[in-house]
Formats: sequence, C-alpha cells, structure tokens
Amino acid sequence: MPEVLKASADQAEFLAALTAAGLLLESGVPGVYGHGSVFEDVRCRLDDRLSSEAGARGAERLRFPPLLPRRQLESSGYLNSFPHLAGSIYSFDGNEQDAAVQSERAARHEPWGEFQEMTELSLMPAACYPVYPAIAARGKLPVGGAFIDAGGAWVFRHEPSHDPARRQIFHQHELVRIGEPEAVLVWRDEWAQRGLDLLRAFGLAAELDVANDPFFGRRGRMLAANQQSERLKLELLVQIAGPEPTACASFNHHRDHFGSIYGIEVSDGSTAHTACLGFGHERIVLALLRTHGLDPAAWPAAVREELWR
Amino acid sequence: MPEVLKASADQAEFLAALTAAGLLLESGVPGVYGHGSVFEDVRCRLDDRLSSEAGARGAERLRFPPLLPRRQLESSGYLNSFPHLAGSIYSFDGNEQDAAVQSERAARHEPWGEFQEMTELSLMPAACYPVYPAIAARGKLPVGGAFIDAGGAWVFRHEPSHDPARRQIFHQHELVRIGEPEAVLVWRDEWAQRGLDLLRAFGLAAELDVANDPFFGRRGRMLAANQQSERLKLELLVQIAGPEPTACASFNHHRDHFGSIYGIEVSDGSTAHTACLGFGHERIVLALLRTHGLDPAAWPAAVREELWR
Repeated sequence: MPEVLKASADQAEFLAALTAAGLLLESGVPGVYGHGSVFEDVRCRLDDRLSSEAGARGAERLRFPPLLPRRQLESSGYLNSFPHLAGSIYSFDGNEQDAAVQSERAARHEPWGEFQEMTELSLMPAACYPVYPAIAARGKLPVGGAFIDAGGAWVFRHEPSHDPARRQIFHQHELVRIGEPEAVLVWRDEWAQRGLDLLRAFGLAAELDVANDPFFGRRGRMLAANQQSERLKLELLVQIAGPEPTACASFNHHRDHFGSIYGIEVSDGSTAHTACLGFGHERIVLALLRTHGLDPAAWPAAVREELWR
Repeated sequence: MPEVLKASADQAEFLAALTAAGLLLESGVPGVYGHGSVFEDVRCRLDDRLSSEAGARGAERLRFPPLLPRRQLESSGYLNSFPHLAGSIYSFDGNEQDAAVQSERAARHEPWGEFQEMTELSLMPAACYPVYPAIAARGKLPVGGAFIDAGGAWVFRHEPSHDPARRQIFHQHELVRIGEPEAVLVWRDEWAQRGLDLLRAFGLAAELDVANDPFFGRRGRMLAANQQSERLKLELLVQIAGPEPTACASFNHHRDHFGSIYGIEVSDGSTAHTACLGFGHERIVLALLRTHGLDPAAWPAAVREELWR
C-alpha cells in the first residue's frame, strides 16, 4: 500500500474543525468521508449552478455510475500515465468451502485476497471517460459537434492523504466538448475564463494557471513537461489549507486522443478533438468553508445569492 | 466470473426500447448503464420526493460515497451472507518496470491482475452500512433514537444480467432508524405502508409481501427461510418486464445486528435495534416507464403531479 500523505498543521486543524462541526464524517480511511447535511446542501447548490451554466449554453445532460468497464480503462492509456491512481474491482466466484474460509479470515481481519478475482469493472478514473464511447456509439457527429454535461460524478484516485482537500473518492463535475479542433480549443479557453469568473463571484481568490497531471515515474516527468509547455492543462487554484494553493477545477485539451481511441468523426469525416472541464465539488465547497467560515448561513450575502438563487 | 443471467424476451425488448429512446446508455458490461437526461430527470424527482417525505418526518440527511472501508465490510457479516455479490478494490503499488508491463498487458486486453493488490476499500454493498458507525461515533443515542436519510447512494451487486432491472451498480435510497426495539419495528411497518401508498400514487400496481435476501449456498437457504418466517424483510413488488414482479423497495428489520457490531446504545444503555428501508431508484423509474410509457411528458397528469410538484 502507498504511504498515507501527511497533513500540514493547518490542514489537520481544518479537518478536525470540519468533522467537529459535522460537515464531514470520518470513515476510518484517509480521504474517504461522509457529508453532513450542511456540506451536502452547499455541494448540491454548486452542482445545480454548474449544470445550469452548461445547460444555458446547450449542454446535453448524461449521467454515469462510479464504475467504468475495465476494457475501456485498458484502452484509454490511463494505466500508462497513472497506474498508481487506478482502482480495479475484484469479486468472489468460488464454492461454499472457499466462501466459508474467506468469511472467517475476513471476520478476523486477516488476508482474504486469494479468493478474489478481477472482474470486468474498474473504478471511474475521471468523469469524462464514459462520455466518449457513448457519443461514438451515435455515429458521426452532427455539425457543431457535441457538448455534454456529465454532472457531479464520483471518481476514484488511490492517493490516501490526511489533507481534507485530497480525497480518494470525490465528485468531479465534468463538461465535455467534442468537435472540430479549433472550436474545441476556443471552448476550453472560454470555459476556463468562465470558471475563473464563477469562483471569484463566490468570493474565492482564484487564479488561473498552466498545470500538469501527476504522471507516474521518470517517463511521466517528460509527459508533464510537454503538457505544461503545450498548455494542454489549465487549472483554477485557490488557497484552502496547506502550503500551496489547491486545484479546484481543471480545463484539459486532449487533441485527438479520445477521438482516435473511439473513432469519433466530425461531420467532414476527420477525427474529432476533445476537451473536458472538471470542477471538484468537494474542493470548491472546502474553499468556500475556508474562505467564508464553517457556517454557510453566515456567509456574505453576495456569495449566498450566487448559490441559493 | 459468474455467468451472465439471461433476459426473458420481454426484458430484452424493454432494454432495446430503453436504449433506442436514449433513456439508458449501454456500457458494454451487462447491468452497468449510463442515464440519458429524461431518465435522470425522473430519477432526481423521485430522489427529491423520498428525501422530502423523510425530511417532513424529522430525518437527518447524511450522504456517503460508493466505497466502504474494507474493515467495515469484514465486520458486517456481509461476506458470510453474500460473498458472491461483494466487490473489493485493488490497486497498483509497484515500480516503474511493473507499471510498464502492466500497462502493455492491459493495452492488449491480456491479464494484469498479478500487479494489483487489495486496498483498504470495498464497494458499498448497501447504502445503510456507513450510517451505523457514523451514528455510533456520536456516543449514546438521544431519547427517541436516530432517523437518517442516506439519500440515493450508489451500491454494488456483482450479478451481471441482461435484465434492465437487475443492475450491478444502482442508486439505493436508504432511510435508517436506530433506537428502541419497539419503536424501530413500528417505524419499519409504518414506512412499508407509506412506501406502498407512494408507489400506488405513482400509478404503479405495487404489492407488499414478505421476502428474503439471496443468501449464498446451502446454509443460506436456512437463513432465507428464517428471515421469511420472522418477517424480517418486506418488499414492494411491481411487474416490470419478465415472468415475475420485481422488488422496487425493501423494508428490513435487523434487530440488534448492527447495534451490537458498532456498540450503539439507546438512552437506557441497552443495545439499539435498527431497521432500514431501501428504495431502488432505477427500478422505480423503470416501473414507471413500463407502466406509463417511455415518454414521461405523456404520463397521466395525476402521476406527473406526484413527481413534478
């Protein structure tokens, strides 16, 4: 198992305050939390607001479960870039005797993995992954391409941490654009500005910056440098707790990566480009709680009007 | 891997109609679907309605992710009763060379399980499971006990099927009552009647019946017979597609099972009893679509008024 990332002093204090106030509920595993009603109310308002912004600009709503067919994970290249973050699903398909031994071992908290085998499913690595095959299944794109709101979907990252802003399982609200290369890039950059304006309207001191993914290993450092230099990933950063600001949203340009894998064609028959925006629901709620205080009823009126309207 | 359960002719036709209408999106794995906007709109209305009924009767809203700490699964007895339905999460924690081999194998859709090891997490087997330790962590129950609305949470059952009403991953809306034995049993029976009234108000020909869980193996047949004779599980059944009606909600009495595991005490210091209600969001939406037709805009006005109000 990977080592659990330590929290800075102010991250640990923030987490203790969040759980004491009933905003978060600890599960016993770092980075896995339940939500109290107040936390969840803010998160749902944010979810509604993001979907409403997307809907007003023509997005189609699709929703997906927290599991991705393993075959799609295998085809996506994710295991090449982020093998340390992926989760796969195992299950039991043995006889009664094996079931009895497995159950006894488990009840004693002793190893029982030898009775489990890999299924056809994995955890969702990013909320945009199921969108591409769903759109590809419709055939050639109409003129203008596609704009999908995949909503606040659960995604998994295996990086246990005591920083309350670094979750193993969280809601990533993804908007996905599929179409002509130029239109996709323009859309990505427009939404990066819109996302910045939105977080600032929530009273957050957000900054837009060029970023890179946490690619695995030595080869990953080259991928990261390339991603930076080609401005493929932009992020909205907000200071929550800890020494560095936290990425609360990212705006990613994939060029023809997913279009090629799933054979998505624009109306003239060439391979579609894609981009996606991911807003981290829990991180934005934490940024709001850190900035405006743990009681949303006492937040500035202008901030409340943006979310409770 | 377990064999995929076959669909009856009318189940297969229903699934084909649902996907042709864009209500469901196939993922390539039986029992794992995306939702189109129309399906999801009905599901969200149902979610709101159930939470609103619970809230009006004093329920506290808590929300949990689709993952349960493995230790809790081990302590719960679930692996004893339903080893064939549980899912456990595996991940990679190797070096760069292993990562490269794993990635190459996966890209060719060849086995790569040898590089994966069991994590501290499992998939959520039932939406009420995280509620008990969360309430236990608060200490002795107040007079009157606790009533929790855990919302429409994702749960996993490893039983691949081509019947659209049998999912591997679906929203189970759980309401949980924890308290004195008599109060818990009365609550369970009141809500069974309320659930029946609600589904009938939606225009569904629902019936309440005594039921049993799909316990594993020969010993499971005895557990099932006992559960039936002691009326520990009630179900709301609606005819969707297939030869038999489908359970759309269940009302379960656990006696002191979870109270003992988590040491939950009522105000006089004795072990709390618990009961939970689980409404299957997707099954209820499918029952509505099957009963009233695939276009919710054309449903009877009385049904629409129940959900869109």
